[in-house]
Amino acid sequence: MGEQAGATRTLAAFVARTQWADVPADVRHEAKRALVNYFAVALAGARDPTIEKAVGIYARFRANESASLIGRQERTDMLNAAALNAMSANVFDFDDTHVPTIIHPGAPVAAPLFALAQSAPLSGEQLLLAFVLGVEVACRIGNAVSPEHYQRGWHITSTCGVFGAAAATARAAGLNEREMVWALGNASAQTGGLVETLGTMSKSIGVGNAARNGLLAALLAQQGFSGPDAPLEGERGFLRCAASHPDLGAIAAGLGSDWALRANTYKPYPCGVVLNPVIDACLALHREARCALDAIEAVELRGHPLVRERTDRPDVRTGREAQVCAQHAVAIALARGRAGLPEFSNAAVAEPDIRAFGKRLRFADDASYSVEAAAVTLVLRTGQRMTKRIDAARGSLAAPLDDTALEAKLRDLAAFGGAGVVPELLLAQLWTLDEAPDAADVMRLAQAPRAHANT
Amino acid sequence: MGEQAGATRTLAAFVARTQWADVPADVRHEAKRALVNYFAVALAGARDPTIEKAVGIYARFRANESASLIGRQERTDMLNAAALNAMSANVFDFDDTHVPTIIHPGAPVAAPLFALAQSAPLSGEQLLLAFVLGVEVACRIGNAVSPEHYQRGWHITSTCGVFGAAAATARAAGLNEREMVWALGNASAQTGGLVETLGTMSKSIGVGNAARNGLLAALLAQQGFSGPDAPLEGERGFLRCAASHPDLGAIAAGLGSDWALRANTYKPYPCGVVLNPVIDACLALHREARCALDAIEAVELRGHPLVRERTDRPDVRTGREAQVCAQHAVAIALARGRAGLPEFSNAAVAEPDIRAFGKRLRFADDASYSVEAAAVTLVLRTGQRMTKRIDAARGSLAAPLDDTALEAKLRDLAAFGGAGVVPELLLAQLWTLDEAPDAADVMRLAQAPRAHANT
Repeated sequence: MGEQAGATRTLAAFVARTQWADVPADVRHEAKRALVNYFAVALAGARDPTIEKAVGIYARFRANESASLIGRQERTDMLNAAALNAMSANVFDFDDTHVPTIIHPGAPVAAPLFALAQSAPLSGEQLLLAFVLGVEVACRIGNAVSPEHYQRGWHITSTCGVFGAAAATARAAGLNEREMVWALGNASAQTGGLVETLGTMSKSIGVGNAARNGLLAALLAQQGFSGPDAPLEGERGFLRCAASHPDLGAIAAGLGSDWALRANTYKPYPCGVVLNPVIDACLALHREARCALDAIEAVELRGHPLVRERTDRPDVRTGREAQVCAQHAVAIALARGRAGLPEFSNAAVAEPDIRAFGKRLRFADDASYSVEAAAVTLVLRTGQRMTKRIDAARGSLAAPLDDTALEAKLRDLAAFGGAGVVPELLLAQLWTLDEAPDAADVMRLAQAPRAHANT
Repeated sequence: MGEQAGATRTLAAFVARTQWADVPADVRHEAKRALVNYFAVALAGARDPTIEKAVGIYARFRANESASLIGRQERTDMLNAAALNAMSANVFDFDDTHVPTIIHPGAPVAAPLFALAQSAPLSGEQLLLAFVLGVEVACRIGNAVSPEHYQRGWHITSTCGVFGAAAATARAAGLNEREMVWALGNASAQTGGLVETLGTMSKSIGVGNAARNGLLAALLAQQGFSGPDAPLEGERGFLRCAASHPDLGAIAAGLGSDWALRANTYKPYPCGVVLNPVIDACLALHREARCALDAIEAVELRGHPLVRERTDRPDVRTGREAQVCAQHAVAIALARGRAGLPEFSNAAVAEPDIRAFGKRLRFADDASYSVEAAAVTLVLRTGQRMTKRIDAARGSLAAPLDDTALEAKLRDLAAFGGAGVVPELLLAQLWTLDEAPDAADVMRLAQAPRAHANT
């Protein structure tokens, strides 16, 4: 498999051959962090109305009950579980982000792996290795078609996620290199998902399909269901469909030394990422100023023009809209000193004080700021001015959430989901997953206990 | 719903409102013809190795046995049946072709409708109307993105078929206009399929998904699973993802007066369409010359250069390859006076006489010929020359297969499939489908009878 091999064969060989010992320690740990974040957001999303509806309809097409749903009591078959758990993890847009591509790799790659683990013997180490490799495949294909692919309107988490799901589950199932090429080919026949669906329930179908169909692609390949030799780089293959001038070299460049998980980030707040530094500043001002909203006459938000362009929404009505609304984010963070999912609920948006306060926000465009920076100034009724400037937002690559913050995120979101999952048991299992003889133990801790009311 | 309405709403309103009485008589009849062709090709494909494998794997994810598989004894749930029957109908590339787009609309639209009909009360008239409208939706969306979309590498039967399947099943299930928009939005999240997979088993996954996922899109919309307002014409919607300069006006132009089914054609031979006039000529020469291959010294094939470019393949090894090989097509048609699926089997390709005779073929490019025309000249060992020129190939829009020929195709392919289906009963049911109280009766006649050995 030398330099002459095409992108697909190169990637297939890498996924089929790489061993856990080949994965650097920091990448191994990052895989665990990504899984902590994955279970956190899936626990939060599991009772969202979109997921409730999907679970009900998909239950009509449930072949067996081999697999668990995170944060829920129902069980279903592995394909449906892959879809529904991926949907739960992504529904709030609170999942991980591979910065160069804006792929959210955790949901489409982790969901099918854990579904598979509940039917096939799979150690924690095997699952972690497959997860690392699946994320690598999704993000490398994303690198090759970015930025045009997403800009054009393809939802890159779904379109590239299906390849990551296929590669991860194919590796976990022990497919050889030829079968791995077929798995990627079978995935290529199923790539899809549109940016136009974001903000609607439809988005979840695409993300769920990426997880489900990637697993199906691997199961088919395992039975000899064959595909093209070059589904990625072929003349009518995915890369050329996905972008006018794909960077074919990006697939193999630095393979085995540059790891996609090193560019993976986790959100501290359930908001558009450009609001991260704004919320950081408001939470700090809440702590330092300790004053009621009434005492604040105006708020000035200085930041990159993109912040205003993406988030100046003076009249939002729903929690989903509020996730990309500076007026709401500033008001609620200053008022409550918190910025979690309860602060971006429909109820929070409807509070009269919060709605009224949003009108006191003024934007000041300043192109000298990066999108990871912002300065917020409070003008108090006393005439006093207080400014907090953030240069690297929490959750950015320069200031990533540390392990403690990720643990807190899981605890918060487990409580928000209300399924009765015990966060400490789940966390302990995830941090030691590489030592676990059976990766499926995680799912037993992540599903809603049967005894729990779950309402 | 005036001229101001966007493409999606216009299409949704049309699908939700059109009545059987609004469909012209010739289009009604064409719908029946398309269904005759659909069942013919599905009966032939049902035992192909690709389908055998898919049936086995999909059976692991079968929720119930509400739906039949054409030409087989197994039953499965409606989503799996939609996928597998669409795969069977398309696996030999012997299905229908909407000439302007090269969409094969029958498989993705008919398969989910009949699967739905086995679970929900649906009259023959309702099914036919839904089929007409689903074909219309798939082909109109295809018109808007052609020719760039297919040329780029998207398998248009799959990418547009999912919209046709969604529209057809949404109409059959009685969705209102708002829900119809959601169904199209839920379909938009699932559009995919690559030309690179053609000639491999992977292709069938994409075609099956179009049928399955369109039905799922409609079922979700029926339960209030909502999508974007403009999944087609939106800034990041399907049309702009699918082509650089989509013709948005093509969606609504002539809606209700220009019918896509009028541009739908049915293949007489299981081959690339450029071989149709070549085979026509050879079959005529076989009848007229009545000489053994030994008596023929050479064959000259005069036609558009595209014929040579697409079909000059002197050394094919499989039946699938032979479907686009002029050497094999000419030899087998002259030798046997037939050009059906048995003539394009692996066994037929392996016959020494046929392989040897192929070497006697000479191409003569002649750009004055259309791709629907060809002239074949036999040079006999006696020195005599015999020429047959075809100006409009059988199966083209200018010389469509008549009803009798379609019936013969169904009889031939039912025999080829060997499932024990009685062609005359199925044909009688299809030609009178508009009078049938229960459309599902067709499926009872199209599945393999339980008593039949089916081996």
